[in-house]
Amino acid sequence: MAFDANNLPDVTGVTIAILGGTGDQGRGLGYRFAVAGHPVTIGSRTVARAEATAAELADLPGVAAPIRGMLNAPAAQQADIVIIALPWDGHADTLAELADDLAGKIVVDCVNPLGFDSRGPYALPVPEGSATQQAAALLPNSRVCGAFHHVSSVLLTDPAVAEIELDIMVLGEDREAVRVVQALAGQIPGCRGVHAGRLRNAPQVEAFTANLLVLNRRYKVHAGVRITQL
Amino acid sequence: MAFDANNLPDVTGVTIAILGGTGDQGRGLGYRFAVAGHPVTIGSRTVARAEATAAELADLPGVAAPIRGMLNAPAAQQADIVIIALPWDGHADTLAELADDLAGKIVVDCVNPLGFDSRGPYALPVPEGSATQQAAALLPNSRVCGAFHHVSSVLLTDPAVAEIELDIMVLGEDREAVRVVQALAGQIPGCRGVHAGRLRNAPQVEAFTANLLVLNRRYKVHAGVRITQL
Repeated sequence: MAFDANNLPDVTGVTIAILGGTGDQGRGLGYRFAVAGHPVTIGSRTVARAEATAAELADLPGVAAPIRGMLNAPAAQQADIVIIALPWDGHADTLAELADDLAGKIVVDCVNPLGFDSRGPYALPVPEGSATQQAAALLPNSRVCGAFHHVSSVLLTDPAVAEIELDIMVLGEDREAVRVVQALAGQIPGCRGVHAGRLRNAPQVEAFTANLLVLNRRYKVHAGVRITQL
Repeated sequence: MAFDANNLPDVTGVTIAILGGTGDQGRGLGYRFAVAGHPVTIGSRTVARAEATAAELADLPGVAAPIRGMLNAPAAQQADIVIIALPWDGHADTLAELADDLAGKIVVDCVNPLGFDSRGPYALPVPEGSATQQAAALLPNSRVCGAFHHVSSVLLTDPAVAEIELDIMVLGEDREAVRVVQALAGQIPGCRGVHAGRLRNAPQVEAFTANLLVLNRRYKVHAGVRITQL
């Protein structure tokens, strides 16, 4: 089977909630999905912050679908697909609280458990192996995938950036959900979603973000990853 | 500082030993370095196997420097740069035995600690974090870097493949040694060596090989990695 980005499910108009959507990664993804015509809900722990972020994003050029803000729980309930962009610090506790709201949903974890010290970024140890595996353990009734770990929030949120050259590694056990997330990745111009393995191979994808941040700092870029030969 | 492959040390004619050089990865790297004009020594636990591999490689098209075979210890002693391509199984024991032979050398570990089962490849847990960190712990008097983890041995050993499109992640603490290894990576046509971080960020680079193997199987390719924007 050759890689074929055209042979993926149609995700036109699918609604997306982004939990922790007021952070850099969440804002950037929310903006790009709204530009691609997906109704987006920014979820947060406080309504005011969620609404402020939603209003800010809705004012950016090219937005082609409504962007709303609400608390994480109702945001999760009303969306087709839910992206987890929470700070790693509150990841486990927040997901445990939201397990019922997320039941039956395709849940896409994009959290990178990283630490930073005087020597730069590094991967934090995660008892479950990765943030995505932690999500899968806490959300047994959701269809948990990992994706969008390496995309630069700076590029996502810059309306002047027309295309982001990046292959998005989608991790997951549920092939159908993985293919939906691959299709969703393709909604960002320049991006391709590739199925890079099962959840047990998520830790290194998340941790590799530390290497990209090292490269960003060293070479003054917003580095991404392309898989060659695909 | 922009990425500048030209601003790296001159490694013309540097001699290279490959320990465990009779395996696929070792053979492939040995071939490409000999094509690039580097005298190569294939190291093995048995002289006969080392010599047989060396003779086989020397017969391939384009080889521009001598390829010899010898035991791992003398191979290590006489080379400028030593590449560790041992099976993960014997990695720690063999390096512990060779610590004196490797003292003062630039040592480049390219070992991927991987397991395989019915569900495919996966990263093995490593007490030190990674093969490269294990090497650094066992070889305190060597200048240990990690590199060449993702390069496909199939592409390396195929004389019909003129260029291998790949960015080689070089990990290390010793900036000067890292730059030498970056230059060495650039000796393989199509490859660039990039400094992707300190040794503590090696685990995910090694483990990511499992994701590439998943992609290889799924999409029938020999996948590599390019860092975008560099």
